[in-house]
Amino acid sequence: MYSFLPSVPMLTVIYVVAITAEAMSGALAAGRRNMDIFGVAVIAFVTALGGGTIRDILLGRFPVGWTQHPEYVYLVVFAGLLTIVGASYMRRLKHVFLVLDAMGLIAFSLIGCNAALEMDYPIVVAIMSGMITGISGGILRDVLCNQVPVVFRRELYASVSLFACILFLSLRELGVEADINTAVTFASGLVLRLMAIWGGWKLPTFSYQQRWD
Amino acid sequence: MYSFLPSVPMLTVIYVVAITAEAMSGALAAGRRNMDIFGVAVIAFVTALGGGTIRDILLGRFPVGWTQHPEYVYLVVFAGLLTIVGASYMRRLKHVFLVLDAMGLIAFSLIGCNAALEMDYPIVVAIMSGMITGISGGILRDVLCNQVPVVFRRELYASVSLFACILFLSLRELGVEADINTAVTFASGLVLRLMAIWGGWKLPTFSYQQRWD
Amino acid sequence: MYSFLPSVPMLTVIYVVAITAEAMSGALAAGRRNMDIFGVAVIAFVTALGGGTIRDILLGRFPVGWTQHPEYVYLVVFAGLLTIVGASYMRRLKHVFLVLDAMGLIAFSLIGCNAALEMDYPIVVAIMSGMITGISGGILRDVLCNQVPVVFRRELYASVSLFACILFLSLRELGVEADINTAVTFASGLVLRLMAIWGGWKLPTFSYQQRWD
Repeated sequence: MYSFLPSVPMLTVIYVVAITAEAMSGALAAGRRNMDIFGVAVIAFVTALGGGTIRDILLGRFPVGWTQHPEYVYLVVFAGLLTIVGASYMRRLKHVFLVLDAMGLIAFSLIGCNAALEMDYPIVVAIMSGMITGISGGILRDVLCNQVPVVFRRELYASVSLFACILFLSLRELGVEADINTAVTFASGLVLRLMAIWGGWKLPTFSYQQRWD
Repeated sequence: MYSFLPSVPMLTVIYVVAITAEAMSGALAAGRRNMDIFGVAVIAFVTALGGGTIRDILLGRFPVGWTQHPEYVYLVVFAGLLTIVGASYMRRLKHVFLVLDAMGLIAFSLIGCNAALEMDYPIVVAIMSGMITGISGGILRDVLCNQVPVVFRRELYASVSLFACILFLSLRELGVEADINTAVTFASGLVLRLMAIWGGWKLPTFSYQQRWD
Repeated sequence: MYSFLPSVPMLTVIYVVAITAEAMSGALAAGRRNMDIFGVAVIAFVTALGGGTIRDILLGRFPVGWTQHPEYVYLVVFAGLLTIVGASYMRRLKHVFLVLDAMGLIAFSLIGCNAALEMDYPIVVAIMSGMITGISGGILRDVLCNQVPVVFRRELYASVSLFACILFLSLRELGVEADINTAVTFASGLVLRLMAIWGGWKLPTFSYQQRWD
């Protein structure tokens, strides 16, 4: 049995906020596909907890996190269903959402890094574990909603996760104390993500239209 | 090593009927996408045994069920290929199919519940294990056929699985003997599902068309 | 801990060539969806190493192969990104690619068979393990790029994997020495695949357009 959340209490709070925000983003995506309330609940669950689930399975880290934390299951399903009622008000909260989502991305990334380090995986696996935790919930959401994952085309998003993981692991290597490391990485990642949204920064895209294979 | 099927012999028979019916539904979906016979066999396999596979992986329950029961692999691949030959006759059997599929849904749900209980997972995980076993084969089928999973939009289906799991666990809590519990849950779930088909009962849907995130 | 690659050094070389070729095919698919460079790297990774990952998880074979071989992760990401630069030259190399891809298919299949045999799974599971290793990277690529997997509709491809697995296991049963077995299976599979491409051999397809379920 492993600790599912790092000891930093602040990160736990942010994690709970993050899965709530992710559940809501899943519910809105389900609504765009006219799903029924069950579909909304499933997509909310998968978006919020799917990234951690894929990470746990890939790392061979059983039991999977949420199976030991039923309260998170209730929370994300409830948040998804609440979104149905509140959807018309949410547009006004767009900016709040983007900040919550950015906080969630970085919290997920740090938690994913930690999970792999606790199991003595190599550094590159810790980085990938962080990114997988951060982005694959959204990828599952998009696959189940039958669209190309937005994370592969949006403003800097996965790159922010990568940046946060590398910064966290570098400061750790330099002997920076865990709580300070977490705070510095969190703040830097958040600023980078918000600047990317504000400036519309994107990675270069690769367009290739020839069909020959 | 865990028992893959519950001890109730009737449930085993229903399970075999169910995976056969699910394999056939997978083969028809593959035919709608003009797949070759290999694709038909894969979709048949995934539809019939994919739900149990996802459940076993999520629960960390290795070896995965079908790897210890090659006869089920042969059965579902054979059923899938037979569907190619018999597809033109199947339309007349529509009502038989719907009943078999409903029986399968509930058998899968009870088997999934049991699997999680045997491993001492919390109750909410047992319910989710039942639903995952019941519906995720069909979700995989739809994702591989590049469409939004019908289970998120159809008449009461996942809800029937949820109902059966909750009824089963409640009666178990009340001390009802296992075989009686299974029979009662099975009959109740089947009636609910057939009434839902007959009456066209659906869950309310959530439609949300704004794009702002 | 299990050996990730068979002892035959030739197969290791072919494996490295194969994951490189698969990574490039993934990158081109990502380019057709106008993904950013991060998306290209992810699809390259998933196409090249996703088949082995799914196999390892299904077999309960932890830690998953690539987590113990960071060099493969670097290789496939690098190959994917290099493809962005070199895409315009690649059309001329079409025939080279098809041969590399065919070699990879068979190498993956033999490695997958071996992995299941080492864990004492039944023969049918070894065959499926070989096919899953061979084809599911491409299936993941196509699902993430939101299209029906080409492997279900293309010229003999999965069938070649099936043929190679059965031949390999039959010769093994007959007591043929491992290196000779590998060489014979490899050559036979490669010839079959290249003849299928050259002759445009396809499996019969199943077209079913009625909607009634």
